[in-house]
Amino acid sequence: MFSPLIKELMESLRCLPGVGPKSAQKMALYLLERDSQGADRLANALRDALDKVGRCATCRTLTEDTECSICLDQARDGTRLCIVETPADVIAMENAGSFDGRYFVLLGHLSPIDGIGPEELGLDRLENLVRNTDVEEVIIATNSTIEGEATSHYISELLKPLNIELSRLAQGVPMGGELEYVDGNTLALALKGRKKL
Amino acid sequence: MFSPLIKELMESLRCLPGVGPKSAQKMALYLLERDSQGADRLANALRDALDKVGRCATCRTLTEDTECSICLDQARDGTRLCIVETPADVIAMENAGSFDGRYFVLLGHLSPIDGIGPEELGLDRLENLVRNTDVEEVIIATNSTIEGEATSHYISELLKPLNIELSRLAQGVPMGGELEYVDGNTLALALKGRKKL
Ligand SMILES: [Zn+2]
Ligand SMILES: [Zn+2]
Repeated sequence: MFSPLIKELMESLRCLPGVGPKSAQKMALYLLERDSQGADRLANALRDALDKVGRCATCRTLTEDTECSICLDQARDGTRLCIVETPADVIAMENAGSFDGRYFVLLGHLSPIDGIGPEELGLDRLENLVRNTDVEEVIIATNSTIEGEATSHYISELLKPLNIELSRLAQGVPMGGELEYVDGNTLALALKGRKKL
Repeated sequence: MFSPLIKELMESLRCLPGVGPKSAQKMALYLLERDSQGADRLANALRDALDKVGRCATCRTLTEDTECSICLDQARDGTRLCIVETPADVIAMENAGSFDGRYFVLLGHLSPIDGIGPEELGLDRLENLVRNTDVEEVIIATNSTIEGEATSHYISELLKPLNIELSRLAQGVPMGGELEYVDGNTLALALKGRKKL
């Protein structure tokens, strides 16, 4: 009952994560009925980002500049490098506020089934970066998932010969976590990694 | 920590209803990291819709054609006209499946505070439509809200002199509604409108 262009707008809105047919319909009608200015701004922002955003030449995070603001920041500690899966993970680490080194962003994790191997994650570039700069410690902060663990394992094997300090984020009971609600795998890891008091 | 173009994309995604800062960040990164094809399609769909979608010359619903598909459909009953606030209401009525007349879409309701008066809702065109076509009954299906009621009242006063049948959707307990959970105003209306058995 909608015209083709309105239908196409509804369908294309469904590429957004978490947007089903109902919300897509609501969004499309809202934009057309009440916020054509917002829709115009969004169309421009999408076009600009698609045309200009690429990857930081050093850490591979998303940016329209040659190098991202963290890589350009001379005040950051260049001896420590934290490896994360995505730009959102960089934000999470920055918000935690206890790391002032640099990052390397994989933009994914190893997933042979999807054709994502070491090359797609830029691991050759990572190796060169660690080899040719003053990095002394690499902290692997990939997700605590099967894929994140496999990626972590691969990277640690790759970097071991370079004679640097290698570490992985600690796993265990989250802060404020009540044992009753912590899943079994996490508890097992927390037990295995228990610390002497 | 995000570059200006990525920030702009996140901010402009917030024009979508129901999208807060967290989901906007998630959507922007998802599009840039994993679905540039979807983002491209969305940018084009927005641009096309903004450039070409206007209003049906007859019923004022959103369409890129001169007249919408319902107005063009010769099989519909031209003697009955249903007045609704938005295109989504047309869909709701069509899904209910018991109306085969035509529609008039206000694209809003009277709201003097927002500068929305009879002219903005196309009520002069509505009057002409009823006067110059073979409409015999007008069913006012504006929302059952204060604004919808006020709009309904205004329209009924406007059309009364035209000597047609005028009706308003019935109000009452929704199907499957348990009295315990029906709000007081609805119950009062249902009682007032009780039918002899
Ligand atoms: Zn960088
Ligand atoms: Zn129409």
